[in-house]
Amino acid sequence: MTTALLPTGFHDRLPPFADAAARLEQALLGAAHAYGYERADPALAEFEAGLAGRLKAARAQDAVRFVDPVSQATLAIRPDMTAQIGRIAATRMGHHPRPVRLSYAGPVLKLRASQLSPEREMRQIGCELIGLDTIAAAREIVEVAVAALAAAGVADVSIDFTLPDLIDVLANGPFPVEPGQIDTLRDRLDAKDAGAVAALAPAYLPLIEAAGPFETAHDRLCAFDAGGALTSRLDGLWQIAEGLKGRVALTLDPTERHGFEYQSWLGFSIFAGGVLGEIGRGGSYTIVHENGAEEAAVGFSLYADAIVAAGLAEVDRRRLFVPVGTDPAVAAAMRAAGWVTVAALEAGDTPEAQVCTHVLADGEPRAL
Amino acid sequence: MTTALLPTGFHDRLPPFADAAARLEQALLGAAHAYGYERADPALAEFEAGLAGRLKAARAQDAVRFVDPVSQATLAIRPDMTAQIGRIAATRMGHHPRPVRLSYAGPVLKLRASQLSPEREMRQIGCELIGLDTIAAAREIVEVAVAALAAAGVADVSIDFTLPDLIDVLANGPFPVEPGQIDTLRDRLDAKDAGAVAALAPAYLPLIEAAGPFETAHDRLCAFDAGGALTSRLDGLWQIAEGLKGRVALTLDPTERHGFEYQSWLGFSIFAGGVLGEIGRGGSYTIVHENGAEEAAVGFSLYADAIVAAGLAEVDRRRLFVPVGTDPAVAAAMRAAGWVTVAALEAGDTPEAQVCTHVLADGEPRAL
Repeated sequence: MTTALLPTGFHDRLPPFADAAARLEQALLGAAHAYGYERADPALAEFEAGLAGRLKAARAQDAVRFVDPVSQATLAIRPDMTAQIGRIAATRMGHHPRPVRLSYAGPVLKLRASQLSPEREMRQIGCELIGLDTIAAAREIVEVAVAALAAAGVADVSIDFTLPDLIDVLANGPFPVEPGQIDTLRDRLDAKDAGAVAALAPAYLPLIEAAGPFETAHDRLCAFDAGGALTSRLDGLWQIAEGLKGRVALTLDPTERHGFEYQSWLGFSIFAGGVLGEIGRGGSYTIVHENGAEEAAVGFSLYADAIVAAGLAEVDRRRLFVPVGTDPAVAAAMRAAGWVTVAALEAGDTPEAQVCTHVLADGEPRAL
Repeated sequence: MTTALLPTGFHDRLPPFADAAARLEQALLGAAHAYGYERADPALAEFEAGLAGRLKAARAQDAVRFVDPVSQATLAIRPDMTAQIGRIAATRMGHHPRPVRLSYAGPVLKLRASQLSPEREMRQIGCELIGLDTIAAAREIVEVAVAALAAAGVADVSIDFTLPDLIDVLANGPFPVEPGQIDTLRDRLDAKDAGAVAALAPAYLPLIEAAGPFETAHDRLCAFDAGGALTSRLDGLWQIAEGLKGRVALTLDPTERHGFEYQSWLGFSIFAGGVLGEIGRGGSYTIVHENGAEEAAVGFSLYADAIVAAGLAEVDRRRLFVPVGTDPAVAAAMRAAGWVTVAALEAGDTPEAQVCTHVLADGEPRAL
């Protein structure tokens, strides 16, 4: 084993990608800050028992765990930050008036990678609005996500909405399904398997067609006769979409379910031109307090690594080579004017070796 | 156990401290970037065998370790980032022309806390210049540290220099000491124990007096008759100090040794007004390549938590409450003008509940 190798799923971010990632994060969270979202920075490790209770079951299993020599308890490194923000909102900020608006950014670690995402260390960035999951709250959280991506220069953003609890609402309302068959129905609808849905619960067939560009899909969903069971959700979606028209492309896939198992009425995936796969996701959900009380919340997470890897966060790398013997005051003046100065520390150093684009000559930057 | 509790040595950073820490980091590394220091972001975990070889022995023992189900090898969470930057410089950037300038910021984790620092998760920020440990290199790295702290608004900075290999140089030169007694001598000099030093190696006694304000201590060290063995070090210190005169307070404690065991000719501690204990440290050191070759380097690390805890990175918390029903374009105009807007999402929400300092009334911010 050479020390140059890292374990599968881990990697070092080198120049210029680490700078690109840092600037992306600053731009994203700077924009969210302007909407009142202040940062929380949860501990990297906490008691496994506490964390597991707040995580999806699958995620808790994937956390890196170790025995704490101080407490003799098992600690876990966070595999997700949303659960930690929920913990903070429910405990130390439990008495803060609602809604609480928090943002966060940091590394998360998984013991095992999934087939879809081979990385085991990822950078998670997001915002959570805790205390409300109303249409107004959902509108704001989607607006903040879109504004943050715009501020970071991420173009061609599109949002795909879904209604995670749609089948539950219909099965408990106008179109009953045998309890044992709900999971199969969900799965077949998610797979757009018309044959299986027709055999299982034909009333649900129109849902397969109610996916695609937002307005068309929304029209079809409105035409779907559900006896008013979906009216509040459809109105909500419409109001959220209204604020985004002309700024981002919108689609609707009401039975998309994968990864939204823990969302309540609203879920959404975020995509950007030039990036394969989603760059973020969000929706409404529930956090649980110490006393068992539940509280509504909405939020989103962005996957910085995907955005940086796609080259959507490029940084300016103009670098000015400062020859040996230059008056330090001249170099300082160049920095004050916005230049990155790279000082030669030995006579043999060259602008090429220091990856410089300019060289200081006669007190002026000269392009190379 | 309540889930509100975190393990000893871990804590959540809440508003406004997490924002303060993020801005401090941006300011520090933004200033370093202007000197050509680009960011590297090493993996949070790596093979323990590789990491341990690059860490001080004590630190390797204190790393959080776990078995990787993929490789079946033991992985370690980094307890320090400097060693990782050395690894990157020696391996993936091994063929990059020297010097290599890198900056970094991120969490580090310790399995056990020390008596001096009870925290087990800390945020480490720093810069490393790899390939040189000349006076010019040392001048630059100290200059970058001072410029970064100035950019971040940290006032009353002082730097305490030391000469970590001083005793080795003297013992192998003008003032031989029995090998078995060198460690005792170092320890007694560090403790300023004149009686013990007089009994052990009286030639070293003047070193105890050669500590204090930089110029006086430097004069005494120059007067100390070491047959020229210290001349290059003393010249180097003088040149480094020259560039800092009038900007930061300088002291010299040539036999200060604690924590500098792995530095070569130069070490320094950084202090700031209002903060108990050091806020950073740095110096010259050696990194080791895969083939065993050694390479000189200089660098510094800053302890962001200490600076934030001392309130030296306060953030502006002006927040503008935007009542229900306000035209979204008006709120957007306020954000564009630099305001943080906090929208009421329900009729009952109040500026007080949202910790706002201003409220939007008749299209204008009104102070509360």
